[in-house]
Amino acid sequence: MSKRHLVTLLTDFGTMDHFVAAMKGVILDIHRDVDIVDISHDIPPHDVFAAAFVLNSAMSYFPRFTTHVAVVDPTVGSARRPILVMTDNYNFIGPDNGLFSYVYQTETVNRVIHITADYYFRQPVCPTFHGRDVFAPIAGYLAKGVDPRKMGEPITDYVRFDVPRPDVSDPKRLRGAILHIDRFGNCFTNFTKEHIQLAALRAGGRFLVIHPQDPAKSREVTKFVTHYAEAQPNELFALFSSTGYLEIAALKVPAARVLEARRGMEVQFVVP
Amino acid sequence: MSKRHLVTLLTDFGTMDHFVAAMKGVILDIHRDVDIVDISHDIPPHDVFAAAFVLNSAMSYFPRFTTHVAVVDPTVGSARRPILVMTDNYNFIGPDNGLFSYVYQTETVNRVIHITADYYFRQPVCPTFHGRDVFAPIAGYLAKGVDPRKMGEPITDYVRFDVPRPDVSDPKRLRGAILHIDRFGNCFTNFTKEHIQLAALRAGGRFLVIHPQDPAKSREVTKFVTHYAEAQPNELFALFSSTGYLEIAALKVPAARVLEARRGMEVQFVVP
Amino acid sequence: MSKRHLVTLLTDFGTMDHFVAAMKGVILDIHRDVDIVDISHDIPPHDVFAAAFVLNSAMSYFPRFTTHVAVVDPTVGSARRPILVMTDNYNFIGPDNGLFSYVYQTETVNRVIHITADYYFRQPVCPTFHGRDVFAPIAGYLAKGVDPRKMGEPITDYVRFDVPRPDVSDPKRLRGAILHIDRFGNCFTNFTKEHIQLAALRAGGRFLVIHPQDPAKSREVTKFVTHYAEAQPNELFALFSSTGYLEIAALKVPAARVLEARRGMEVQFVVP
Repeated sequence: MSKRHLVTLLTDFGTMDHFVAAMKGVILDIHRDVDIVDISHDIPPHDVFAAAFVLNSAMSYFPRFTTHVAVVDPTVGSARRPILVMTDNYNFIGPDNGLFSYVYQTETVNRVIHITADYYFRQPVCPTFHGRDVFAPIAGYLAKGVDPRKMGEPITDYVRFDVPRPDVSDPKRLRGAILHIDRFGNCFTNFTKEHIQLAALRAGGRFLVIHPQDPAKSREVTKFVTHYAEAQPNELFALFSSTGYLEIAALKVPAARVLEARRGMEVQFVVP
Repeated sequence: MSKRHLVTLLTDFGTMDHFVAAMKGVILDIHRDVDIVDISHDIPPHDVFAAAFVLNSAMSYFPRFTTHVAVVDPTVGSARRPILVMTDNYNFIGPDNGLFSYVYQTETVNRVIHITADYYFRQPVCPTFHGRDVFAPIAGYLAKGVDPRKMGEPITDYVRFDVPRPDVSDPKRLRGAILHIDRFGNCFTNFTKEHIQLAALRAGGRFLVIHPQDPAKSREVTKFVTHYAEAQPNELFALFSSTGYLEIAALKVPAARVLEARRGMEVQFVVP
Repeated sequence: MSKRHLVTLLTDFGTMDHFVAAMKGVILDIHRDVDIVDISHDIPPHDVFAAAFVLNSAMSYFPRFTTHVAVVDPTVGSARRPILVMTDNYNFIGPDNGLFSYVYQTETVNRVIHITADYYFRQPVCPTFHGRDVFAPIAGYLAKGVDPRKMGEPITDYVRFDVPRPDVSDPKRLRGAILHIDRFGNCFTNFTKEHIQLAALRAGGRFLVIHPQDPAKSREVTKFVTHYAEAQPNELFALFSSTGYLEIAALKVPAARVLEARRGMEVQFVVP
């Protein structure tokens, strides 16, 4: 059994500059026996929602006790708090700006700590780069075995944005929403297999993507497939993505462009 | 001597999303003592030929017993088979779609196994993401020491595309082809030092890149260099690339654009 | 304490092709107990100055005795020398083309070795890919414990470009320069906190970015902030970046475009 700790990194820093490497250097300088895995550094700049979605899509595949460090931090240097979220399975380190909203919903959270123990920070802390001077050191010291309770005091008023759940009050017309649009223009809704029954699909169930301003631009999606090779080019279709969420996609053309889709747009599942 | 296993990953998943990280998490969750090295995740989407070429250009530098996992898989979820290719030096894991065509040609293949042991898969297997649910787990269990023969039965009818070899029947006019075009527009032919003798080059040997539709667009390349700094801007030249293949390139301008080059286009070596 | 060696890589090879993976394979094939960390592979092609700046911004965060391999090498295959730079803290391996200019200035250099021990190279050395055939093997053998003195003879005439320091002869008008422009168009000057006193800023100190051809295009920057969230969109502002250098930046729009900035352009700090 390996004694090496596992730390993942998720940022919007890109890979052209020194930022990610500086964080890795700091972690490894504090504790050498760490394996660092990149989740992504290509989150659209400052897009906390996209980062939260990608973190949620990747985090649960890692071994128990992995530390996930996520730094998409538009208000770095302001009063927003650095936090450590401890769940049954993982530690999460990052800014208290909603980045861990899915975590609060899907993991059993034991404690959220406002990190204040500047004893562990790189000094002087640069107000534009807490990734290097606050979050990376905390990850390093946790890996080294420092008791998380030394990092600060528990809080309960941490920031979380609403991850909407489908409204299922009308069983003939479920009302969901687009949670995430990926770089191919695929639109991930908040419907899961719990909401969309195969029987309902077979009976002619269809999806309506509601354009908020112009009803004429709302689109119907009647095709449901189980894998991409079943679809035809340029045709909108629905499938259950590997994230577990129902996805509206198209081959050759970005579905989001066809739909003029935005995060939060309503998607209905209509059962005849 | 390290006890850690080495696994490489080659995909067309890009680095913006959770896909690559999910695969790494799955591998490390099955067996923690693995070092994972990325070959590339920026293969043009669904380009099995490009992936095969890049795999071939990188694989042989890794230590013996490395496991190479390659997932460029346009027909994921269809009837195409998952396979494990065992050679004298390496294990290869991926879809049976021709991705390992160079491997079959350059490595001593001991066995190709159709992976059917769904006992080792992540369940339920998502029909759009075998990278996470089939290939990563198999890599993890191999690293953990599971006998490859438990993964499925040997097959001999695996898919391989033809990696063309030059036609050398006319020693005054060797007929080769473009195997690969990289992101800089450099064109890699299937000529190697075995075909192109220095003496023939010195005697005025030259290359003809044959435009398939319009002979007027065929181009002659008379300059041969040993390293890029010898060439002049905007001039086409030939050199032996680090892959071992003869490359047609240009500085400042993509050679492929000048040549209107496509994979498979004929390149002749004419000896006076 | 880990026995694994740490090697970082910095190149302009991009991540679409096999180049970086081939280097990693070579290192790991020579010595398996190495952790390899990418600094960046997205340096603008052949931009030795940018590579030097990024290396300088990342290197010092890594543990002592890390080996930094940097390969931005426009004249690979020519007479330029491969070198090994040994400092109190690190080893640096790469071409002798100025890439280590900041290293010579900020680290205590004990020895610069012209690498000539082709016994350790991959043979035959490809004249277009010393990264794989010269620099990676040297890094591998150093990690394996080979005495650096076996790699070649010390030299003192290594190539270094001038990293300009501000001219402070007129305390009311300090004359600095732009050292680096990052991919967001942020402009890093050579001013540090040593030159720019908070008192002088409070007293109305301002920055002038001097357009070399057209004085009408020179721009004044009067706003100074400590973190990005303080700034307004489209407004030029100055702040101390996480590199320690004073940065001229803007939100939403690349500062370099507004300023028509180029590396080397003069920036003055004027104290009233």
